[in-house]
Amino acid sequence: MGEFELIRHYFAAAPCARPGESVALGIGDDCALLSLAAGEQLAVSTDTLVAGVHFPVVCDPFLLGQRALGVSASDLAAMGARPIGFTLALTLPDFTADWLKAFAEGLNRMAEDCGLRLIGGDTTRGPLSLTLTVFGAVPGGQALTRGGAQIGELLCVGGALGDAAGALPLVLGERSTEPAVSEPLLARYWSPQPQLALGMALRGKATAALDISDGLLADCGHIAKASGVRLLVERDCLPMSSALLDLLGDVAAQQAALSGGDDYVLAFTLPAPQLAGLQAAGWPITVIGQVTAGEGVALIDRDGQDITPAVRGYQHFRDSQ
Amino acid sequence: MGEFELIRHYFAAAPCARPGESVALGIGDDCALLSLAAGEQLAVSTDTLVAGVHFPVVCDPFLLGQRALGVSASDLAAMGARPIGFTLALTLPDFTADWLKAFAEGLNRMAEDCGLRLIGGDTTRGPLSLTLTVFGAVPGGQALTRGGAQIGELLCVGGALGDAAGALPLVLGERSTEPAVSEPLLARYWSPQPQLALGMALRGKATAALDISDGLLADCGHIAKASGVRLLVERDCLPMSSALLDLLGDVAAQQAALSGGDDYVLAFTLPAPQLAGLQAAGWPITVIGQVTAGEGVALIDRDGQDITPAVRGYQHFRDSQ
Repeated sequence: MGEFELIRHYFAAAPCARPGESVALGIGDDCALLSLAAGEQLAVSTDTLVAGVHFPVVCDPFLLGQRALGVSASDLAAMGARPIGFTLALTLPDFTADWLKAFAEGLNRMAEDCGLRLIGGDTTRGPLSLTLTVFGAVPGGQALTRGGAQIGELLCVGGALGDAAGALPLVLGERSTEPAVSEPLLARYWSPQPQLALGMALRGKATAALDISDGLLADCGHIAKASGVRLLVERDCLPMSSALLDLLGDVAAQQAALSGGDDYVLAFTLPAPQLAGLQAAGWPITVIGQVTAGEGVALIDRDGQDITPAVRGYQHFRDSQ
Repeated sequence: MGEFELIRHYFAAAPCARPGESVALGIGDDCALLSLAAGEQLAVSTDTLVAGVHFPVVCDPFLLGQRALGVSASDLAAMGARPIGFTLALTLPDFTADWLKAFAEGLNRMAEDCGLRLIGGDTTRGPLSLTLTVFGAVPGGQALTRGGAQIGELLCVGGALGDAAGALPLVLGERSTEPAVSEPLLARYWSPQPQLALGMALRGKATAALDISDGLLADCGHIAKASGVRLLVERDCLPMSSALLDLLGDVAAQQAALSGGDDYVLAFTLPAPQLAGLQAAGWPITVIGQVTAGEGVALIDRDGQDITPAVRGYQHFRDSQ
């Protein structure tokens, strides 16, 4: 068996959580075939992860498979899409069956969690990298884009910020700490939880949305630009985990929350009247600012003073856009 | 501008042949959005090309862009799909604006020829490789799979075989010859012409189809296996170009036609009554064999004698499945 057949074999051996009615034809022909319900649109996103750039060259293949798919699926969450499937293009310098088995198991764990099915792929020889293309469906006109934020609306996030950036020195082995602190942070890095259910719940409610991959301030800049508005981020409203605060202390934790990448929680804008209903339904939403006239992103203190720092990017693996 | 923005810039600067009504949202958000007509299915295929494996490390970026997209689009032709768009994941060790401009122009040339639109992508730093994911639409139930060949049908191809394999020593600089011979062969290698129109014309007529990427005999093996039949290939019926015959002579040209990869012409099966209509409509179809009971693929001479050789794969860049 070739590498892709091995992955397929190991992947197929695991139970498929939701067989995905939308997949009319899976692996094994020239193309896969997807069917949508009447009026649905297909959401598509492609991400590449390169060893030494986006993840350590030496890393656990289970964790790599799990993380890679989680990162990609997060783009579906950001559009409010119902997950369908994904293709995997894997380039490997060499491989062992054990490596592929563990990789496929990690991929499968995340695929089950997300309701995604492997529908095709390609395996090639070369320096280690992965390109995942994910597919989801969204009712026509209901996708959450970046361009609809309106002046007067609230800016919100779907979970704690900065954990993945805090985890990075632990991932790189540059630092170690007690398990009670390191474990939850490492879990955020290696097992990002794409907020697919939240994204679907925000359809028709949020006016703009994305997933935070490059850091809160940088990503809010994308919403501001696409929507033609200015976003104010309130420094003292940022949700942070106790593990991050324990590891870094208040000041560095705040910086991680503002500019650390790889958290993969949703940031979105919505009219204030929508907030109560979502919170009452149990969605973990924190208001962190507001939409105003102008352009760009500003950090403000509790008195509304502009304290935008020359925030520098946290050290992280991402160097691409 | 980052690399992907540069590609998008150069790509967008060229006229877009067919704006693609199916692309509801293109580059720039978390996902692209595609819309299908009622009853259509989406066809999806992913291919990776790695420098030094699938193409020479040093090569013309225009030709690389052109060839990469042609190779991928051929999978849409093989399904009978109407082309819609593609995503590009490009990994580069370094780049110059000139390189990216030429690459985007080559990509664009093929995109225009194929009616494909760039809908998204990712650019990362690392050893040179490309992953292209292509999207097309096909009326529900009319996709050309590999699995429908029936005993008694004809085996056909859509064009001359072996040219790309013949071109390989020229591509690698291991051999040179007069332009009248080298130019048409090099064009087949660097500018494969996916048979998209033929694929669409075969809907409802061909019973099984694929595009020849691994070599005729190997790819016929895929149809035989998926359809549960045996394919007989008539050695003396293989269509070959005069350039290939000039370069290699009859025996080596025949071997290139049988086992050389990268031709990207369609191979398909159909009931004999369908043939005349297609040929009358001007489609360049050559009957090369027939579908019989059994399994696998056999090469026969004009007397029907099995002369299946221990055909060895031609030297080529592909080493993946």
